[in-house]
Amino acid sequence: MRALTVQPGATGKGNSIPVSVEELPDPSPGDGELLVRGLGIGICGTDREIIGGHYGWAPPGASRLVLGHESLGRVLSAPAGSAFAEGDLVAGVVRRPDPVPCGACARGEFDMCRNGEYTERGIKELDGYASELWTVETDYAVRVDARLESVGNLVEPTSVVAKAWDQVDRVGARSWFEPQRALVTGAGPIGLLAALLAKQRGLDVHVADLVKAGPKPDAVRALGAEYHSDPIGDVAAKVQPDVVIEATGVGEVVFDAMAATAPYGIVCLTGVSAAGRRLTIDAGATNRSMVLENDVVIGSVNANLRHYAAAASALAAADLDWLNRLVSRRVPLERFSEALTPEPDDIKVVLTL
Amino acid sequence: MRALTVQPGATGKGNSIPVSVEELPDPSPGDGELLVRGLGIGICGTDREIIGGHYGWAPPGASRLVLGHESLGRVLSAPAGSAFAEGDLVAGVVRRPDPVPCGACARGEFDMCRNGEYTERGIKELDGYASELWTVETDYAVRVDARLESVGNLVEPTSVVAKAWDQVDRVGARSWFEPQRALVTGAGPIGLLAALLAKQRGLDVHVADLVKAGPKPDAVRALGAEYHSDPIGDVAAKVQPDVVIEATGVGEVVFDAMAATAPYGIVCLTGVSAAGRRLTIDAGATNRSMVLENDVVIGSVNANLRHYAAAASALAAADLDWLNRLVSRRVPLERFSEALTPEPDDIKVVLTL
Repeated sequence: MRALTVQPGATGKGNSIPVSVEELPDPSPGDGELLVRGLGIGICGTDREIIGGHYGWAPPGASRLVLGHESLGRVLSAPAGSAFAEGDLVAGVVRRPDPVPCGACARGEFDMCRNGEYTERGIKELDGYASELWTVETDYAVRVDARLESVGNLVEPTSVVAKAWDQVDRVGARSWFEPQRALVTGAGPIGLLAALLAKQRGLDVHVADLVKAGPKPDAVRALGAEYHSDPIGDVAAKVQPDVVIEATGVGEVVFDAMAATAPYGIVCLTGVSAAGRRLTIDAGATNRSMVLENDVVIGSVNANLRHYAAAASALAAADLDWLNRLVSRRVPLERFSEALTPEPDDIKVVLTL
Repeated sequence: MRALTVQPGATGKGNSIPVSVEELPDPSPGDGELLVRGLGIGICGTDREIIGGHYGWAPPGASRLVLGHESLGRVLSAPAGSAFAEGDLVAGVVRRPDPVPCGACARGEFDMCRNGEYTERGIKELDGYASELWTVETDYAVRVDARLESVGNLVEPTSVVAKAWDQVDRVGARSWFEPQRALVTGAGPIGLLAALLAKQRGLDVHVADLVKAGPKPDAVRALGAEYHSDPIGDVAAKVQPDVVIEATGVGEVVFDAMAATAPYGIVCLTGVSAAGRRLTIDAGATNRSMVLENDVVIGSVNANLRHYAAAASALAAADLDWLNRLVSRRVPLERFSEALTPEPDDIKVVLTL
């Protein structure tokens, strides 16, 4: 079978991309595993970080890693008595608990792993899903609604957003919390999916990004949300959001969002930024407004099985035409370098297998 | 009776202090109210902000406000059938719910008031407790253990700290949470009381402040906690705290604390800083570490009845000699200007009535 592989850490920034399509032996499912025909892989910023040599670890003893963590496939074989059957659409979970395990991993909360010894398919020490065939433990496979074949790769990014909203709910519940207005910063896939989940919760939803026109503002409006391209501080001051889902990772946006919520505001940070970006802020005002308003800022990464289940349900309940807007390009495996090169109107690019 | 009053907002920064001891009519308790002989008032930064003209509001129709929110008194008369009796030690709660009320105030969570229309005794539109006699509704009076006459003024600042720990508990409970190490930044009254509550929870407690010697480091060590006077970034990197209670309000400390927790770290900000303090930070690294570690920063202010009850219990369970270390000076009412002038070894100054 063919697979998209990379040698993590082989290049520094700006060097050539050590990524290629390799011919690998077909996998054999072990006990309790599904054999899956890969349909496609969504590409995200983490893949670009790995390819750029800034992140990622090959499996122990190997020099190359199969990429791909936004998976979708069709079951070819399932263990007898499992909840899966041939023909089912499935997505594979990315993270596995650390082997110690830490207290969080021992309780299935591996998205909150404390010791950093977790593994991740396509990212950290486990081969990913960017191959024509892959296997996955039934415990880490998520059934995807049959009508979502064109957009099922969105389960993984939606799980990240489902976790973010779960964090907002749990932190909000520390006192009375009936949020009305949500502001999402960034109209990429994470931002748009965060807006989708916000609409499904019945919130008044606002999305801010820099672009003035194109598929991102169109997708926001098609969702029934309000699109803003003014500076984020102005937007937040106008909207007075109860909740901000931050999906840019841009320092200015992060701190403007922290400074401009309604009282008891919650900002959930989901964007992974690079270190080294210096920014001068009014630290006194940021701290003062957080304290006097009982505001909270939550960092949120990854997702556990509960969040994958919530993601699959959210996508099943969404409008399929709207979800299809989010997949802006489909590129066959052999033209992977096209898929990895961002284009201006990209939302989510899927590499088809 | 004599009372310490101020004309809020009468001066700008650096002007003379419009505070004085006034002779006012004795108060009469209304239905459901206690009449209390004031024993003393703790002085805190908020009092200095009010006196400096930066904060505070007189009652409607009045130009002057009776100061004092860290109260302690002895009941002179109590309504028949109430839970209080003549001779009881009591502290008065500071905040009252807004009259609308907002959803939080309607549920007794007035520390989380959303519309800002709450009132506060000695701070916002209600006379405070800095008078020889005062009244208080039995619903907003907190019984103080009889042996705490010398330190009962600490109930109010302890309620602020009890709320902070309550926030940490509730936010921590969003996933598995068994914190081991707490770092408290600042060894003033709030920091020391936060350390006391941390010790009562069985945590490994570290306190950081700038002073090298004197009553603050001594009080930390007497509590069985470790004292640090190195730069906060170095201390946090060494301690790797699961929880940080930030009690300085100093921007550098706030952001160094945010950047240096253990994974799933929680920073609770309790220090009210002035706006306008510019600081250059590595916004990318701060955001990145918060996201990848699932860290949370909580702003926390004020306290509700639950927190006052927790505070009274925490003080009743504490070592009285240790609590007495925190009251570094007792100054009679007529020498209020001495009480308001900070001295190097001050922890908490109490104005005796």
